[in-house]
Amino acid sequence: MPEQVSGAGRESFGSRLGAAMASRGPLCVGIDPHPALLKRWGVEDDAAGLRQFSLTVLEAVAPLAAAVKPQVALYERHGSAGIAVLEEVLAAARDQSVLSIADAKRGDIGSTMAAYADAWLRDGSPLAADSVTLSPYLGFESLRPALDLAAETGRGVFVLALTSNPEGASVQHVGGEDSVARRITTAAATENARYAGSLGSVGLVVGATVGSALTDLDLDLAAVRGPILAPGLGAQGATPADLRATFGDAYPLVLGTSSRDILSAGPRPDGLREAAQRTLDGLRGQ
Amino acid sequence: MPEQVSGAGRESFGSRLGAAMASRGPLCVGIDPHPALLKRWGVEDDAAGLRQFSLTVLEAVAPLAAAVKPQVALYERHGSAGIAVLEEVLAAARDQSVLSIADAKRGDIGSTMAAYADAWLRDGSPLAADSVTLSPYLGFESLRPALDLAAETGRGVFVLALTSNPEGASVQHVGGEDSVARRITTAAATENARYAGSLGSVGLVVGATVGSALTDLDLDLAAVRGPILAPGLGAQGATPADLRATFGDAYPLVLGTSSRDILSAGPRPDGLREAAQRTLDGLRGQ
Repeated sequence: MPEQVSGAGRESFGSRLGAAMASRGPLCVGIDPHPALLKRWGVEDDAAGLRQFSLTVLEAVAPLAAAVKPQVALYERHGSAGIAVLEEVLAAARDQSVLSIADAKRGDIGSTMAAYADAWLRDGSPLAADSVTLSPYLGFESLRPALDLAAETGRGVFVLALTSNPEGASVQHVGGEDSVARRITTAAATENARYAGSLGSVGLVVGATVGSALTDLDLDLAAVRGPILAPGLGAQGATPADLRATFGDAYPLVLGTSSRDILSAGPRPDGLREAAQRTLDGLRGQ
Repeated sequence: MPEQVSGAGRESFGSRLGAAMASRGPLCVGIDPHPALLKRWGVEDDAAGLRQFSLTVLEAVAPLAAAVKPQVALYERHGSAGIAVLEEVLAAARDQSVLSIADAKRGDIGSTMAAYADAWLRDGSPLAADSVTLSPYLGFESLRPALDLAAETGRGVFVLALTSNPEGASVQHVGGEDSVARRITTAAATENARYAGSLGSVGLVVGATVGSALTDLDLDLAAVRGPILAPGLGAQGATPADLRATFGDAYPLVLGTSSRDILSAGPRPDGLREAAQRTLDGLRGQ
């Protein structure tokens, strides 16, 4: 039942993330090598530029952040050469003792979903991360192979639930009192019952700027007892105080995620560190 | 990389697929290098095995199929080495004049979605395919960068709409008369208005074994005027006659997709060809 130490001899992702959030604070730094940022940094939009950008960010923020979140799409743009850089970044995160969240938003069914789980959550996979983001259009239960492999290997998942882009409502808000977003939230809460301790390993992605949608849709995020990945800090418009106001009781579960605001402070490592520290101070102040 | 014809010089994906379906018949062969199939073929579950499997299938079926559909998850399992094989498979499909559908089920928002579009639909990208499958949990409109880049480069997309896995209903059927699946279907129909000719470039993924859900949810697939990728032929339980019965008026839009049934007939090329021909004959007979 509630195995805190996985077969791989690793504590559960929820326990590890909870410890990191307690000791360092609830900051996740997005590693987003967008073409515009690469240009601003004065590096080429190629695999070598990706590598320099990513490893510089990682090294600068690893001691400050509870987790880093490489955005997989931006590596995939460069095909296998970009994916090779991502492998290196994920390995470097392990070496530098910061948890990784591969922001891949994968989702499929059956043996294909098992293959995605294999790619991101299996010991020994070249792309093994501490956790991966998943997309539940095929139903929360379609993600079962990843939920189970994560539990087995001490890894975690973050399932898309409620996002702040305006188009998201056309799927996530549908269904009235039993909305799609509420179904996902409830399923995550049920799933986290398999984990002891204060934080389960099944997290959700909930936008930092969802406003009143959490109450409108009656989502009980505190009951999920899993980490809430909340992108949207800084450049996308939310302050730490907004996060506190939006998430209320569930704020202790929230991993505030900032990308552009911090990344724009590069390429000098002390610029990156200062920007990360400033964001972290704001999050800890709430 | 082989030089590519510019987007302006390429016909729309819908036109090209329509022509291929008219001349060859409505068959798409899935290239799914599942570990169990690799074993059955007597090749290793590594990049070299993937390569041998994929190129053998491609060469055997390219003259018979309107399209081939490599399952991206099964390459991603092998990290950058697997993705490098996928690049080779996509390039080989171009060389052998068969259309490719990268079954990636990607989805995100804003500049991240643009990066996925870039990866799969941009001329000169190492992973450029003729089309890519997309997942709309973040809303159909969140896919805009891919919809627009596809239109610009003569490529296409297939958006997940209604799948036959039982868990899919918990998202796709939600919303009563204005269900999530119906919203996606209607949005695709609207989007295809930008395309002249009989087939638009915005397709949908609709499971071959959805049964009565199409009528239950009042989905007018004929009005979508885009190709319907229908996985589930053969090993997953649907016959060509089932496809005809399920899709009715929309059957001329349906691209029947078979994977395991055909792939299990390998590794001998004539075994693969015979199995593909048999499936194709069944589809043309309807």
